[in-house]
Amino acid sequence: MQKLRVDNFSISIDGFGAGPDQTLNDPLGKNGMGLHQWFFPTDAFQQMVSGQPGEKGVDNDFALRGLEKVGACIMGRNMFGPIRGSWPDDKWKGWWGENPPYHCPVFVLTHHARESITMEGGTTFHFVTEGIHAALRRANEAANDMDIRLCGGVSTIRQYLKEALVDKLHLAIAPIILGTGEHLFDGIDLVKLGYKCVQSTPSSRATHIIIAKDK
Amino acid sequence: MQKLRVDNFSISIDGFGAGPDQTLNDPLGKNGMGLHQWFFPTDAFQQMVSGQPGEKGVDNDFALRGLEKVGACIMGRNMFGPIRGSWPDDKWKGWWGENPPYHCPVFVLTHHARESITMEGGTTFHFVTEGIHAALRRANEAANDMDIRLCGGVSTIRQYLKEALVDKLHLAIAPIILGTGEHLFDGIDLVKLGYKCVQSTPSSRATHIIIAKDK
Repeated sequence: MQKLRVDNFSISIDGFGAGPDQTLNDPLGKNGMGLHQWFFPTDAFQQMVSGQPGEKGVDNDFALRGLEKVGACIMGRNMFGPIRGSWPDDKWKGWWGENPPYHCPVFVLTHHARESITMEGGTTFHFVTEGIHAALRRANEAANDMDIRLCGGVSTIRQYLKEALVDKLHLAIAPIILGTGEHLFDGIDLVKLGYKCVQSTPSSRATHIIIAKDK
Repeated sequence: MQKLRVDNFSISIDGFGAGPDQTLNDPLGKNGMGLHQWFFPTDAFQQMVSGQPGEKGVDNDFALRGLEKVGACIMGRNMFGPIRGSWPDDKWKGWWGENPPYHCPVFVLTHHARESITMEGGTTFHFVTEGIHAALRRANEAANDMDIRLCGGVSTIRQYLKEALVDKLHLAIAPIILGTGEHLFDGIDLVKLGYKCVQSTPSSRATHIIIAKDK
Protein backbone atom coordinates (compact mmCIF):
# COMPACT_ATOMS: atom_id res chain seq x y z
CA MET A 1 0.00 0.00 0.00
CA GLN A 2 1.52 3.29 -1.18
CA LYS A 3 2.07 5.79 1.63
CA LEU A 4 2.70 9.50 1.95
CA ARG A 5 5.56 9.69 4.46
CA VAL A 6 7.50 12.38 6.25
CA ASP A 7 10.92 11.10 7.31
CA ASN A 8 13.86 12.53 9.22
CA PHE A 9 12.07 15.76 9.93
CA SER A 10 13.62 17.60 12.88
CA ILE A 11 11.85 19.93 15.28
CA SER A 12 13.08 21.83 18.31
CA ILE A 13 11.81 21.29 21.86
CA ASP A 14 9.58 24.32 21.39
CA GLY A 15 8.17 22.83 18.20
CA PHE A 16 9.86 24.69 15.36
CA GLY A 17 10.85 22.90 12.15
CA ALA A 18 12.93 25.83 10.91
CA GLY A 19 14.36 28.96 12.44
CA PRO A 20 13.38 32.51 11.43
CA ASP A 21 14.89 34.54 8.57
CA GLN A 22 15.62 31.94 5.89
CA THR A 23 18.26 33.23 3.43
CA LEU A 24 20.61 31.85 0.80
CA ASN A 25 23.30 31.43 3.47
CA ASP A 26 20.86 30.23 6.10
CA PRO A 27 18.51 27.89 4.26
CA LEU A 28 17.07 26.51 7.51
CA GLY A 29 16.69 29.92 9.11
CA LYS A 30 18.62 31.33 12.05
CA ASN A 31 20.06 28.51 14.21
CA GLY A 32 18.08 26.03 12.11
CA MET A 33 21.15 23.88 11.40
CA GLY A 34 21.12 22.91 15.07
CA LEU A 35 18.04 20.83 14.34
CA HIS A 36 20.05 18.33 12.33
CA GLN A 37 23.02 17.59 14.57
CA TRP A 38 21.72 14.03 14.99
CA PHE A 39 21.71 13.50 11.22
CA PHE A 40 25.09 14.82 10.07
CA PRO A 41 27.27 12.19 11.83
CA THR A 42 25.22 9.23 10.52
CA ASP A 43 26.71 6.77 8.09
CA ALA A 44 23.77 7.39 5.74
CA PHE A 45 24.59 11.09 5.51
CA GLN A 46 28.38 10.76 5.51
CA GLN A 47 28.30 8.17 2.71
CA MET A 48 26.08 10.49 0.71
CA VAL A 49 28.17 13.64 1.03
CA SER A 50 31.72 12.30 1.33
CA GLY A 51 31.70 8.57 0.59
CA GLN A 52 33.28 8.10 4.00
CA PRO A 53 31.83 5.95 6.78
CA GLY A 54 29.86 7.62 9.54
CA GLU A 55 28.21 6.46 12.74
CA LYS A 56 25.90 3.46 12.93
CA GLY A 57 23.13 3.06 15.50
CA VAL A 58 19.65 4.43 16.19
CA ASP A 59 20.10 7.71 14.33
CA ASN A 60 21.53 5.97 11.29
CA ASP A 61 18.75 3.37 11.30
CA PHE A 62 16.18 6.16 11.05
CA ALA A 63 18.19 8.07 8.47
CA LEU A 64 18.35 4.95 6.27
CA ARG A 65 14.69 4.12 6.74
CA GLY A 66 13.82 7.53 5.34
CA LEU A 67 15.52 6.65 2.07
CA GLU A 68 13.89 3.25 1.58
CA LYS A 69 11.09 2.51 -0.85
CA VAL A 70 10.73 6.13 -1.97
CA GLY A 71 9.41 6.40 -5.54
CA ALA A 72 8.68 10.13 -5.65
CA CYS A 73 9.03 13.25 -3.52
CA ILE A 74 6.96 16.35 -2.84
CA MET A 75 8.45 19.57 -1.52
CA GLY A 76 7.45 23.19 -1.11
CA ARG A 77 8.96 25.90 -3.18
CA ASN A 78 10.81 27.39 -0.19
CA MET A 79 12.58 24.09 0.33
CA PHE A 80 13.60 24.05 -3.33
CA GLY A 81 15.21 27.45 -3.07
CA PRO A 82 15.27 30.95 -1.61
CA ILE A 83 13.71 32.66 -4.66
CA ARG A 84 10.22 34.11 -4.03
CA GLY A 85 7.67 35.21 -6.64
CA SER A 86 8.05 34.42 -10.33
CA TRP A 87 11.21 32.72 -11.60
CA PRO A 88 13.62 35.35 -12.98
CA ASP A 89 15.30 32.72 -15.19
CA ASP A 90 16.05 28.99 -15.24
CA LYS A 91 19.36 29.16 -13.37
CA TRP A 92 18.26 28.02 -9.90
CA LYS A 93 18.21 24.21 -9.80
CA GLY A 94 17.91 23.58 -6.06
CA TRP A 95 20.38 23.61 -3.20
CA TRP A 96 21.90 20.24 -3.99
CA GLY A 97 24.18 20.61 -7.04
CA GLU A 98 24.02 18.61 -10.28
CA ASN A 99 23.26 15.28 -8.57
CA PRO A 100 20.60 15.88 -5.91
CA PRO A 101 20.06 13.22 -3.22
CA TYR A 102 16.54 12.33 -4.36
CA HIS A 103 17.12 10.04 -7.38
CA CYS A 104 13.43 10.08 -8.31
CA PRO A 105 10.77 12.51 -9.57
CA VAL A 106 10.40 15.48 -7.20
CA PHE A 107 7.21 17.54 -7.35
CA VAL A 108 7.76 21.13 -6.27
CA LEU A 109 4.68 23.08 -5.14
CA THR A 110 4.70 26.61 -6.55
CA HIS A 111 2.37 29.32 -7.82
CA HIS A 112 4.73 29.97 -10.72
CA ALA A 113 4.91 27.54 -13.64
CA ARG A 114 8.27 26.37 -14.89
CA GLU A 115 9.60 23.65 -17.21
CA SER A 116 10.70 20.40 -15.57
CA ILE A 117 14.44 20.04 -14.92
CA THR A 118 16.22 16.72 -15.39
CA MET A 119 19.25 16.41 -13.13
CA GLU A 120 21.92 13.73 -12.82
CA GLY A 121 21.29 10.57 -10.83
CA GLY A 122 17.61 10.14 -11.64
CA THR A 123 16.21 13.30 -10.05
CA THR A 124 13.72 15.31 -12.10
CA PHE A 125 12.14 18.45 -10.65
CA HIS A 126 8.55 18.99 -11.77
CA PHE A 127 6.77 22.23 -10.87
CA VAL A 128 3.14 21.86 -9.84
CA THR A 129 0.89 24.92 -9.81
CA GLU A 130 -2.43 23.12 -9.25
CA GLY A 131 -2.11 22.61 -5.48
CA ILE A 132 -1.33 19.86 -3.02
CA HIS A 133 -3.89 17.33 -4.26
CA ALA A 134 -2.63 17.58 -7.84
CA ALA A 135 0.96 17.15 -6.65
CA LEU A 136 -0.02 14.07 -4.65
CA ARG A 137 -1.84 12.53 -7.63
CA ARG A 138 1.13 13.10 -9.90
CA ALA A 139 3.54 11.74 -7.29
CA ASN A 140 1.34 8.69 -6.79
CA GLU A 141 1.45 7.92 -10.49
CA ALA A 142 5.19 8.53 -10.75
CA ALA A 143 6.10 6.45 -7.70
CA ASN A 144 5.31 3.07 -9.27
CA ASP A 145 3.74 1.62 -6.10
CA MET A 146 6.59 2.81 -3.92
CA ASP A 147 5.99 5.45 -1.24
CA ILE A 148 5.95 9.20 -1.64
CA ARG A 149 8.19 11.20 0.60
CA LEU A 150 6.92 14.58 1.73
CA CYS A 151 10.22 16.37 2.23
CA GLY A 152 9.09 19.71 3.66
CA GLY A 153 9.32 22.46 4.57
CA VAL A 154 7.09 23.14 7.52
CA SER A 155 4.35 24.94 5.59
CA THR A 156 4.06 22.11 3.05
CA ILE A 157 3.86 19.42 5.71
CA ARG A 158 1.23 21.45 7.56
CA GLN A 159 -0.92 21.68 4.43
CA TYR A 160 -0.94 17.90 3.96
CA LEU A 161 -1.37 17.21 7.69
CA LYS A 162 -4.42 19.48 7.95
CA GLU A 163 -6.16 17.28 5.39
CA ALA A 164 -4.94 14.10 7.11
CA LEU A 165 -3.17 13.07 3.90
CA VAL A 166 0.08 12.12 5.64
CA ASP A 167 0.20 8.40 6.52
CA LYS A 168 3.36 8.39 8.62
CA LEU A 169 5.40 11.16 10.18
CA HIS A 170 8.89 10.52 11.57
CA LEU A 171 10.07 13.39 13.75
CA ALA A 172 13.42 13.84 15.43
CA ILE A 173 13.05 16.11 18.44
CA ALA A 174 16.40 17.87 18.73
CA PRO A 175 17.64 19.07 22.14
CA ILE A 176 17.59 22.75 21.21
CA ILE A 177 15.18 25.64 21.50
CA LEU A 178 14.68 28.08 18.64
CA GLY A 179 12.32 30.60 20.22
CA THR A 180 10.71 31.64 16.93
CA GLY A 181 10.45 30.27 13.41
CA GLU A 182 8.05 27.95 11.66
CA HIS A 183 6.01 25.90 14.12
CA LEU A 184 5.04 22.47 12.84
CA PHE A 185 1.84 21.78 14.79
CA ASP A 186 0.53 25.20 15.81
CA GLY A 187 -3.27 25.13 15.53
CA ILE A 188 -3.31 21.57 14.14
CA ASP A 189 -5.30 19.11 16.27
CA LEU A 190 -3.54 15.84 15.45
CA VAL A 191 -5.89 13.78 17.62
CA LYS A 192 -8.97 15.11 15.85
CA LEU A 193 -7.29 14.37 12.53
CA GLY A 194 -6.89 10.75 13.60
CA TYR A 195 -3.19 10.56 14.47
CA LYS A 196 -1.40 9.03 17.40
CA CYS A 197 2.18 8.44 18.52
CA VAL A 198 3.06 4.83 17.70
CA GLN A 199 6.78 4.82 18.50
CA SER A 200 9.31 6.76 20.54
CA THR A 201 12.97 5.79 20.32
CA PRO A 202 15.61 8.02 21.87
CA SER A 203 19.22 8.29 20.86
CA SER A 204 21.87 10.39 22.56
CA ARG A 205 21.28 13.16 20.00
CA ALA A 206 17.50 13.21 19.42
CA THR A 207 14.23 11.55 20.32
CA HIS A 208 12.74 9.79 17.32
CA ILE A 209 8.95 9.83 17.21
CA ILE A 210 6.63 8.11 14.77
CA ILE A 211 3.15 9.54 14.38
CA ALA A 212 0.67 7.59 12.26
CA LYS A 213 -3.03 7.25 11.57
CA ASP A 214 -4.88 5.64 14.48
CA LYS A 215 -6.57 2.72 12.75
CA MET B 1 21.65 30.91 45.41
CA GLN B 2 17.87 30.49 45.70
CA LYS B 3 16.23 29.42 42.44
CA LEU B 4 12.74 29.35 40.98
CA ARG B 5 12.48 25.86 39.47
CA VAL B 6 9.99 23.88 37.45
CA ASP B 7 10.52 20.14 37.91
CA ASN B 8 8.93 17.01 36.54
CA PHE B 9 6.65 18.94 34.25
CA SER B 10 5.38 16.78 31.39
CA ILE B 11 4.41 17.94 27.92
CA SER B 12 3.16 16.06 24.89
CA ILE B 13 5.01 15.86 21.57
CA ASP B 14 2.73 18.58 20.27
CA GLY B 15 3.59 20.78 23.24
CA PHE B 16 0.61 20.55 25.58
CA GLY B 17 1.07 20.49 29.35
CA ALA B 18 -2.53 19.50 29.98
CA GLY B 19 -5.38 18.17 27.90
CA PRO B 20 -8.64 20.03 27.26
CA ASP B 21 -11.73 19.99 29.49
CA GLN B 22 -10.32 19.81 33.02
CA THR B 23 -12.95 18.47 35.47
CA LEU B 24 -13.06 16.99 38.94
CA ASN B 25 -12.67 13.51 37.47
CA ASP B 26 -10.16 14.63 34.87
CA PRO B 27 -7.85 17.06 36.69
CA LEU B 28 -5.27 17.01 33.91
CA GLY B 29 -7.84 17.37 31.14
CA LYS B 30 -8.84 14.79 28.59
CA ASN B 31 -6.04 12.22 28.08
CA GLY B 32 -3.80 14.37 30.29
CA MET B 33 -2.90 11.44 32.56
CA GLY B 34 -0.96 10.00 29.62
CA LEU B 35 1.60 12.74 30.16
CA HIS B 36 2.78 11.19 33.42
CA GLN B 37 3.26 7.54 32.51
CA TRP B 38 7.01 7.98 33.05
CA PHE B 39 6.43 9.25 36.61
CA PHE B 40 3.95 6.77 38.10
CA PRO B 41 6.25 3.71 38.08
CA THR B 42 9.16 5.56 39.74
CA ASP B 43 10.32 4.62 43.20
CA ALA B 44 9.90 8.26 44.25
CA PHE B 45 6.20 8.21 43.36
CA GLN B 46 5.46 4.68 44.53
CA GLN B 47 7.06 5.30 47.94
CA MET B 48 4.98 8.46 48.24
CA VAL B 49 1.59 6.94 47.41
CA SER B 50 1.93 3.36 48.63
CA GLY B 51 5.15 3.02 50.61
CA GLN B 52 6.10 0.25 48.19
CA PRO B 53 9.28 0.25 46.08
CA GLY B 54 9.08 1.37 42.48
CA GLU B 55 11.51 1.56 39.57
CA LYS B 56 14.96 3.09 39.85
CA GLY B 57 16.81 4.64 36.92
CA VAL B 58 16.73 7.84 34.86
CA ASP B 59 13.06 8.65 35.45
CA ASN B 60 13.40 8.11 39.19
CA ASP B 61 16.56 10.23 39.35
CA PHE B 62 14.66 13.14 37.83
CA ALA B 63 11.61 12.54 40.02
CA LEU B 64 13.81 12.66 43.14
CA ARG B 65 15.72 15.70 42.01
CA GLY B 66 12.43 17.59 41.77
CA LEU B 67 11.81 17.03 45.48
CA GLU B 68 15.25 18.12 46.68
CA LYS B 69 16.01 21.45 48.32
CA VAL B 70 12.46 22.78 47.90
CA GLY B 71 11.56 25.29 50.62
CA ALA B 72 8.32 26.63 49.17
CA CYS B 73 5.97 26.07 46.23
CA ILE B 74 3.90 28.26 43.95
CA MET B 75 0.90 26.97 42.01
CA GLY B 76 -2.01 28.35 40.06
CA ARG B 77 -5.52 28.15 41.38
CA ASN B 78 -6.55 25.63 38.68
CA MET B 79 -3.86 23.27 39.91
CA PHE B 80 -5.16 23.62 43.45
CA GLY B 81 -8.65 22.62 42.44
CA PRO B 82 -11.46 22.63 39.89
CA ILE B 83 -13.47 25.44 41.53
CA ARG B 84 -13.64 28.66 39.50
CA GLY B 85 -14.68 32.11 40.70
CA SER B 86 -15.14 32.94 44.38
CA TRP B 87 -14.82 30.19 47.00
CA PRO B 88 -18.30 28.88 47.91
CA ASP B 89 -16.99 27.70 51.31
CA ASP B 90 -13.79 26.40 52.91
CA LYS B 91 -14.32 22.74 52.10
CA TRP B 92 -11.97 22.34 49.15
CA LYS B 93 -8.44 21.71 50.42
CA GLY B 94 -6.70 20.56 47.25
CA TRP B 95 -6.61 17.27 45.37
CA TRP B 96 -4.17 15.58 47.71
CA GLY B 97 -6.02 14.65 50.92
CA GLU B 98 -5.04 15.60 54.46
CA ASN B 99 -1.30 15.14 53.96
CA PRO B 100 -0.33 16.74 50.62
CA PRO B 101 3.01 15.81 49.03
CA TYR B 102 4.49 19.32 49.40
CA HIS B 103 5.56 19.47 53.08
CA CYS B 104 6.29 23.20 52.87
CA PRO B 105 4.42 26.49 52.37
CA VAL B 106 2.49 26.49 49.08
CA PHE B 107 1.43 29.83 47.59
CA VAL B 108 -1.71 29.53 45.48
CA LEU B 109 -2.31 32.31 42.94
CA THR B 110 -5.96 33.37 42.91
CA HIS B 111 -8.16 36.41 42.42
CA HIS B 112 -10.26 35.39 45.43
CA ALA B 113 -8.91 35.86 48.96
CA ARG B 114 -9.13 33.01 51.42
CA GLU B 115 -7.67 32.14 54.83
CA SER B 116 -4.52 30.00 54.84
CA ILE B 117 -5.04 26.27 55.42
CA THR B 118 -2.62 24.25 57.54
CA MET B 119 -2.53 20.62 56.47
CA GLU B 120 -0.72 17.62 57.90
CA GLY B 121 2.94 16.95 57.11
CA GLY B 122 4.11 20.55 56.96
CA THR B 123 2.05 21.79 54.02
CA THR B 124 0.31 25.15 54.43
CA PHE B 125 -1.71 26.61 51.56
CA HIS B 126 -1.55 30.41 51.36
CA PHE B 127 -3.77 32.27 48.91
CA VAL B 128 -2.12 35.19 47.13
CA THR B 129 -4.30 37.74 45.37
CA GLU B 130 -1.57 40.31 44.60
CA GLY B 131 -0.10 38.59 41.53
CA ILE B 132 2.92 36.54 40.54
CA HIS B 133 5.59 38.92 41.87
CA ALA B 134 4.00 39.06 45.32
CA ALA B 135 3.73 35.27 45.39
CA LEU B 136 7.39 34.96 44.46
CA ARG B 137 8.45 37.42 47.16
CA ARG B 138 6.48 35.58 49.81
CA ALA B 139 7.78 32.21 48.64
CA ASN B 140 11.35 33.55 48.68
CA GLU B 141 10.97 34.61 52.28
CA ALA B 142 9.28 31.38 53.32
CA ALA B 143 11.81 29.12 51.61
CA ASN B 144 14.69 29.82 54.01
CA ASP B 145 17.37 29.90 51.28
CA MET B 146 16.09 26.72 49.70
CA ASP B 147 14.62 26.76 46.19
CA ILE B 148 11.07 27.58 45.19
CA ARG B 149 9.26 25.05 43.10
CA LEU B 150 6.84 26.38 40.52
CA CYS B 151 4.42 23.46 40.34
CA GLY B 152 2.09 24.57 37.55
CA GLY B 153 -0.24 24.52 35.82
CA VAL B 154 0.58 25.63 32.33
CA SER B 155 -0.86 29.12 32.64
CA THR B 156 1.10 29.83 35.83
CA ILE B 157 4.39 28.60 34.37
CA ARG B 158 3.78 30.71 31.26
CA GLN B 159 3.28 33.84 33.37
CA TYR B 160 6.61 33.38 35.15
CA LEU B 161 8.41 32.34 31.95
CA LYS B 162 7.25 35.43 30.07
CA GLU B 163 9.04 37.56 32.64
CA ALA B 164 12.11 35.31 32.61
CA LEU B 165 11.65 34.64 36.33
CA VAL B 166 12.11 30.87 36.03
CA ASP B 167 15.74 29.84 36.61
CA LYS B 168 15.47 26.19 35.61
CA LEU B 169 12.81 24.22 33.81
CA HIS B 170 12.82 20.42 33.76
CA LEU B 171 10.47 19.02 31.13
CA ALA B 172 9.62 15.43 30.40
CA ILE B 173 8.48 15.07 26.81
CA ALA B 174 6.02 12.19 26.85
CA PRO B 175 5.53 10.04 23.74
CA ILE B 176 1.90 11.03 23.24
CA ILE B 177 0.00 13.62 21.27
CA LEU B 178 -2.91 15.52 22.81
CA GLY B 179 -4.12 17.55 19.83
CA THR B 180 -5.55 20.37 21.95
CA GLY B 181 -5.22 21.64 25.49
CA GLU B 182 -2.92 24.10 27.19
CA HIS B 183 0.23 24.73 25.16
CA LEU B 184 3.29 25.49 27.27
CA PHE B 185 5.35 27.62 24.88
CA ASP B 186 2.86 29.05 22.38
CA GLY B 187 3.89 32.62 21.60
CA ILE B 188 6.78 32.55 24.09
CA ASP B 189 10.20 33.21 22.54
CA LEU B 190 12.48 31.33 24.91
CA VAL B 191 15.64 32.37 23.07
CA LYS B 192 14.76 36.06 23.30
CA LEU B 193 14.03 35.58 27.01
CA GLY B 194 17.55 34.21 27.47
CA TYR B 195 16.94 30.49 27.80
CA LYS B 196 18.70 27.54 26.24
CA CYS B 197 18.56 23.75 26.45
CA VAL B 198 21.40 22.63 28.73
CA GLN B 199 20.62 18.93 29.05
CA SER B 200 18.71 16.19 27.24
CA THR B 201 18.51 12.74 28.82
CA PRO B 202 16.18 10.14 27.38
CA SER B 203 14.63 7.22 29.19
CA SER B 204 12.46 4.54 27.65
CA ARG B 205 9.35 6.47 28.78
CA ALA B 206 10.19 10.15 28.22
CA THR B 207 12.87 12.57 27.10
CA HIS B 208 14.05 14.69 29.99
CA ILE B 209 15.04 18.22 29.03
CA ILE B 210 16.58 20.94 31.16
CA ILE B 211 16.11 24.52 30.01
CA ALA B 212 17.98 27.22 31.90
CA LYS B 213 19.11 30.80 31.61
CA ASP B 214 21.92 31.22 29.09
CA LYS B 215 24.60 32.86 31.21
